[in-house]
Amino acid sequence: MPRRSDKRERLLVAAGDVIHQRGYGATTLAIIADEAEVPLGNVYYYYKTKSDILSAVLKEHRQRVSEKIAAASKAKSPQGQLISFLDSSLVHKEKVARFGCPYGTLSQELEKLGLPQTEQSKLLIDEQRRWMEQRFRELGHGARSGALALELICAMQGACVVSQTLKDPEIMTQRFSALTLWIQSLIQN
Amino acid sequence: MPRRSDKRERLLVAAGDVIHQRGYGATTLAIIADEAEVPLGNVYYYYKTKSDILSAVLKEHRQRVSEKIAAASKAKSPQGQLISFLDSSLVHKEKVARFGCPYGTLSQELEKLGLPQTEQSKLLIDEQRRWMEQRFRELGHGARSGALALELICAMQGACVVSQTLKDPEIMTQRFSALTLWIQSLIQN
Repeated sequence: MPRRSDKRERLLVAAGDVIHQRGYGATTLAIIADEAEVPLGNVYYYYKTKSDILSAVLKEHRQRVSEKIAAASKAKSPQGQLISFLDSSLVHKEKVARFGCPYGTLSQELEKLGLPQTEQSKLLIDEQRRWMEQRFRELGHGARSGALALELICAMQGACVVSQTLKDPEIMTQRFSALTLWIQSLIQN
Repeated sequence: MPRRSDKRERLLVAAGDVIHQRGYGATTLAIIADEAEVPLGNVYYYYKTKSDILSAVLKEHRQRVSEKIAAASKAKSPQGQLISFLDSSLVHKEKVARFGCPYGTLSQELEKLGLPQTEQSKLLIDEQRRWMEQRFRELGHGARSGALALELICAMQGACVVSQTLKDPEIMTQRFSALTLWIQSLIQN
């Protein structure tokens, strides 16, 4: 793995946080530099434009989704994998209740802005959906697996929207617990 | 009802559309004026600031939600009312697949921007949720009604997010049909 400069890493983490908290439109290189405690003049050495930093953040998000999927995939049963995936998302409920899902809200904003990076952001949701579909297939749901995966990803994204809108992290807890029970009920069918 | 100036009305409609399509952050009075075919110099006569126009758009959205609820409430049975509400949302699936839910995406953006109007935008989702809860209560679901309403509003919002992200209006059709079947299945319980 190539050695990454400490400043580059700090800028990337700060950019991810600032974009999540304020949205991409309200983010500036100056705010990111300030958050990362890197002089603004140095930023241009690592990232020429705000668009460059967005592409780097999306690449990092993609990596994070893959890692989350890989971690959940360690559970023995397909249903255990899906539940483990839900659990790892619920950990961030406080942040989600303030700023929404970092992938969902960013994807939606980039769509509205008509930016070329929407193709990258789309994959953040789609990769999760496709992985879920495979798990439902392993559970023996056959042709229904696609619909079940869509139901699950929509339920998760919707919980994030409503939790943020109503400013209540317990909505995440309530909905994710119900989804866990739902997944368990699907095993018996 | 007080007579509204044609230009004021045109500006309000244009503002609602532009904010939905581009997001509030990327909206300017100049873009709204252009969309409404009203000279920019005239805009200030009706709305002093972008924030004023946002408040007016939110008031209009609130009115629209109330009208949608009133129309759905004309169905005879509580389940018929819920299904009628779903149907009236599905009509906009093409727009939703491009720009997301006008209420959900705006609420989430305003939260991130930390604007005072979040209290108004929150009601757009919450009024729907509370109305649904009443319908489930009428269906005899008692203490479970709140959880069922939360499940339904999350499912609807999630379908909007995933439909926009994956750029596919048929996701709305598929999910809303499944939700209609789910509501029908709840009657038999």
